[in-house]
Amino acid sequence: MSLLVVGSVAFDAVKTPYGQVDRILGGAATYFSLAASFFTQVRIVAVVGEDFSGKEEQVFHDRHIDISGIVREKGKSFFWAGKYGENVNEAETLDTQLGVFAAFNPQIPDHYKDTEYLFLANIDPVLQVNVRSQMPKARFVGGDTMNFWINGHRQNVDAMLRNVDALLINDTEAKLLARDASLPRAAQKILKMGPQALVIKHGEYGATVFFQDGAFGIGRHPFRAPTLPIEVVTDPTGAGDSFAGGFMGYIAAQGKLTRDVFKRAMFYGGVMGSFAVEAFGTERLQKLKREEIDERYKIFRELTHIE
Amino acid sequence: MSLLVVGSVAFDAVKTPYGQVDRILGGAATYFSLAASFFTQVRIVAVVGEDFSGKEEQVFHDRHIDISGIVREKGKSFFWAGKYGENVNEAETLDTQLGVFAAFNPQIPDHYKDTEYLFLANIDPVLQVNVRSQMPKARFVGGDTMNFWINGHRQNVDAMLRNVDALLINDTEAKLLARDASLPRAAQKILKMGPQALVIKHGEYGATVFFQDGAFGIGRHPFRAPTLPIEVVTDPTGAGDSFAGGFMGYIAAQGKLTRDVFKRAMFYGGVMGSFAVEAFGTERLQKLKREEIDERYKIFRELTHIE
Repeated sequence: MSLLVVGSVAFDAVKTPYGQVDRILGGAATYFSLAASFFTQVRIVAVVGEDFSGKEEQVFHDRHIDISGIVREKGKSFFWAGKYGENVNEAETLDTQLGVFAAFNPQIPDHYKDTEYLFLANIDPVLQVNVRSQMPKARFVGGDTMNFWINGHRQNVDAMLRNVDALLINDTEAKLLARDASLPRAAQKILKMGPQALVIKHGEYGATVFFQDGAFGIGRHPFRAPTLPIEVVTDPTGAGDSFAGGFMGYIAAQGKLTRDVFKRAMFYGGVMGSFAVEAFGTERLQKLKREEIDERYKIFRELTHIE
Repeated sequence: MSLLVVGSVAFDAVKTPYGQVDRILGGAATYFSLAASFFTQVRIVAVVGEDFSGKEEQVFHDRHIDISGIVREKGKSFFWAGKYGENVNEAETLDTQLGVFAAFNPQIPDHYKDTEYLFLANIDPVLQVNVRSQMPKARFVGGDTMNFWINGHRQNVDAMLRNVDALLINDTEAKLLARDASLPRAAQKILKMGPQALVIKHGEYGATVFFQDGAFGIGRHPFRAPTLPIEVVTDPTGAGDSFAGGFMGYIAAQGKLTRDVFKRAMFYGGVMGSFAVEAFGTERLQKLKREEIDERYKIFRELTHIE
């Protein structure tokens, strides 16, 4: 089944203890779509500027991602510069230039409107709700958000929460959203705000999915997926979006929502996140082969399963 | 097989967001032995003061723990007072009175010297090495330590590391010991210091065991065990020691060290830690039934396993 992602396609400058790069392809929708493309047909709605060239287009074409929904406007693409220190879970933002992204008002092309799986990457929650309303055929909708929206646009975030089936956020965002320092308690509070499933990403400790009672008819027991203990995290940028891409991509490819599908999706999310951080930007995802994903999935199983 | 633990038997005063208690039974060897007693025959070597009464003895007797190695000295037992805030992973120490523990110099009784499984709870590393040398028949030795020894008694800690088969510490201790902010890298450095297995406890995120290449003939792939997402952590005191008790107790009961035994031991460690925090002090462990352990083990599997 096709999967549509709406979010940022951008350029990043990143500095980590392992080096630095200038103006490489980035953005949540980019990482998401590359990761998801190993599982299913992916479509993107985004806006870019005149600096988005054939070179960048080729990255998507190589992974058979449909970018006919990427609109090109006069001006520059969204640009983010940040650096990571010893703590790979937190980036320090050095520069943000919204460019054409400031006026982003996503319109879903007609030929995308039959898409049954939808991911609302981290953008203004008003736009997320607007996109959802343009997609009446969507069967399963995932969404992301961040502290900026939770702190300053809470009512809009609340509306978004009622419009997604699964919310994918990290520990800090979950505690902020629920105003509760206990993660398990925060999870239960967030499930009451709308989403049937809540995926909390714990960085190097993996991720947990919590369910509403009776969600998707599969029961409410949570499920935890690991990450790989990685000694060299070259560039953490995009790990969370790559997780979301693996998670949503695997679900879209199955076409049904069983408990087992959710569990495997959590594992594939972790697998894709673990690849993303091995090189700067999207380099590792660009070079990745499907066999490598299967191999790492086995390592994730070995890391957690008692036979 | 029998399991011997050498460490503190103490009194604690604890304050958490869920209440407070004064002078209840505590100490690393207490939590450890109660948790391990559900799996195997446990023996303790410790020192207590005149305040250690028949009431406290009964707690051990009820779990068939051999306390003939607990020496009673004139003076008071070790006393610790602490409080926990929103972060259940870190205690603030309010008071420490070493009492008779200050002169603790553990002598292993002759009738304990055939014990094949040994746990050196967190005490002066000089004493840990001394105990190890009194136990030539020990087949598998686990050990714990803490920041105080790592920071101020490094050479003694290094000697201890060469005398244990498995080291069980938490994230902060591992990073401090290896002087490396990356946990996976810290793990590899610590394995080079001596222990064949390193168990790093991640608090609410579970625990990971790392192995030296060829350790116990079972290969070097790490293994991760979860903890339960617990909404109300009544009292985190003793969670790590209860983990160690479940881990070592299960291993001692098997009498062999396979990869599968290690994996299950990690799960039983997590299970015992998850019970310990449900009530103040050792209350939950005292009331626990073996069937509850089996039930929770199943929940841990469900939380992590794809069938």
